[in-house]
Amino acid sequence: MPDTNASEEVDYVRGATRLFGIVGHPIVQVRSPEMFTAAFRARGLDAILVPLHVVPEDFDACLDGLTRLANLDGLIFTVPYKARALELAATLGTQAEIVGAINALARRESGWVGEIFDGLGCMEAFRRRGIPLAGKRVMLIGAGGAGSAVGVALAHQRPAFVRVHDLDPLRAHGLAAKIAAVAPHTMVEIAPPRVDDVHVLFNVTPTGMLADGRLPLDVAALPPSLIVFDAIVMPERTPLIRLAEQCGCTTVYGREMMRGQIHRMVDYFTGQSAG
Amino acid sequence: MPDTNASEEVDYVRGATRLFGIVGHPIVQVRSPEMFTAAFRARGLDAILVPLHVVPEDFDACLDGLTRLANLDGLIFTVPYKARALELAATLGTQAEIVGAINALARRESGWVGEIFDGLGCMEAFRRRGIPLAGKRVMLIGAGGAGSAVGVALAHQRPAFVRVHDLDPLRAHGLAAKIAAVAPHTMVEIAPPRVDDVHVLFNVTPTGMLADGRLPLDVAALPPSLIVFDAIVMPERTPLIRLAEQCGCTTVYGREMMRGQIHRMVDYFTGQSAG
Repeated sequence: MPDTNASEEVDYVRGATRLFGIVGHPIVQVRSPEMFTAAFRARGLDAILVPLHVVPEDFDACLDGLTRLANLDGLIFTVPYKARALELAATLGTQAEIVGAINALARRESGWVGEIFDGLGCMEAFRRRGIPLAGKRVMLIGAGGAGSAVGVALAHQRPAFVRVHDLDPLRAHGLAAKIAAVAPHTMVEIAPPRVDDVHVLFNVTPTGMLADGRLPLDVAALPPSLIVFDAIVMPERTPLIRLAEQCGCTTVYGREMMRGQIHRMVDYFTGQSAG
Repeated sequence: MPDTNASEEVDYVRGATRLFGIVGHPIVQVRSPEMFTAAFRARGLDAILVPLHVVPEDFDACLDGLTRLANLDGLIFTVPYKARALELAATLGTQAEIVGAINALARRESGWVGEIFDGLGCMEAFRRRGIPLAGKRVMLIGAGGAGSAVGVALAHQRPAFVRVHDLDPLRAHGLAAKIAAVAPHTMVEIAPPRVDDVHVLFNVTPTGMLADGRLPLDVAALPPSLIVFDAIVMPERTPLIRLAEQCGCTTVYGREMMRGQIHRMVDYFTGQSAG
């Protein structure tokens, strides 16, 4: 046989490679493919995580097909599917039970199991920065899947006060109730965004993603003492993060939250953690 | 933001990467992922082709889901789906029309189009080796999707004689009729495999794939003048190829056929060819 030219083949995907995917709409902004695939490789696994662009009207058919693929071992869910994906899991982890959403679906012999890691990843990012949240006053914008996960994980840190805002008042009230259930001594308020009376601002909405030049709250400046977290990973420097840096605030990036959850999620996908 | 550690990310898949897949059962033996992905990269495309293991009872649901993915631009079909995949294409190419099977499904603005490239790739492998097929006597084992594609493309080369064998006599007769339609002056026979009276043997069955140690025909030796082609790509040296090499035959590998069709298929997937 003629010699095989090495450049005719790549060395990172082959027939035996196990598949993982991230499901979202839009999808081009996600950072999971490059980060999770690297985490799999670091553990010596022949696996790859690919972007899966699913439009809302095709969610049911796409997910029915994807979960039947015999070599697909797990899925990550991002905007706008974290709540909708809940129904795909036969069994839910503890965080997912409280939040009512999942961002990870893993194949087990018994079926698909789901859990949400955003909140845990966000808390891990603050821990690595050495920024305690216990006793702090917090403004949380966004009570969707990721926002609720951050809110519930935050509640476990026992902040003094959390003001919740979401464009959908029902979602805001739902999250406030969850925070109150986890942390009965934390004061919870549902009100439009303001940051003059808080220590930390969390943006967990898509406002500012990709080419969206808007801020998630209507301000011209931010107090320099404010700690500003933005869950968005693309761009890394969102309009909110840029304003915060202009104002001298401490900033925590979405990428840090993502890094915080990757290892726990890889454990989950490979069955090395409970659930 | 803390510096990003380069080893935390791979550089070959990201949110904007376009998806392609190969659908088969089994799937671990396929070579398309590493070869097509390299061909995409060689053209500067941010695209990846992944293995998609679909079991027969889930074919309809899996393909319904996969073809709805908004970032999936094409699929390759291998054993046992080349005939079944035909129904997925709204429009068929010329080879697919004759063969009644496809191995490539490509997204166009107007919908999904299908074509079969196995036969063209096999003929290209013989052309590159400088082995003419015009006027030759041929034994062709296998009249499924790939076997039919090889038979039809072979007919266009005007061999003197083709003996067709398939475990399913209906498939053998179907292919014989197609060969006769393309090449009315070629003698066609349907009979069990024998190679004492032919110049070239084509195996286009899965016999000998992976751990299957069988030969596709019942022989202890092969004439040294015989040219032996085996469409199987895993293993590269099938039991048939090993016997042929022991007997001093000229051998043509499945990988050569695959190389022959890759560039034409990448053209097709990227809309750089008609169809």
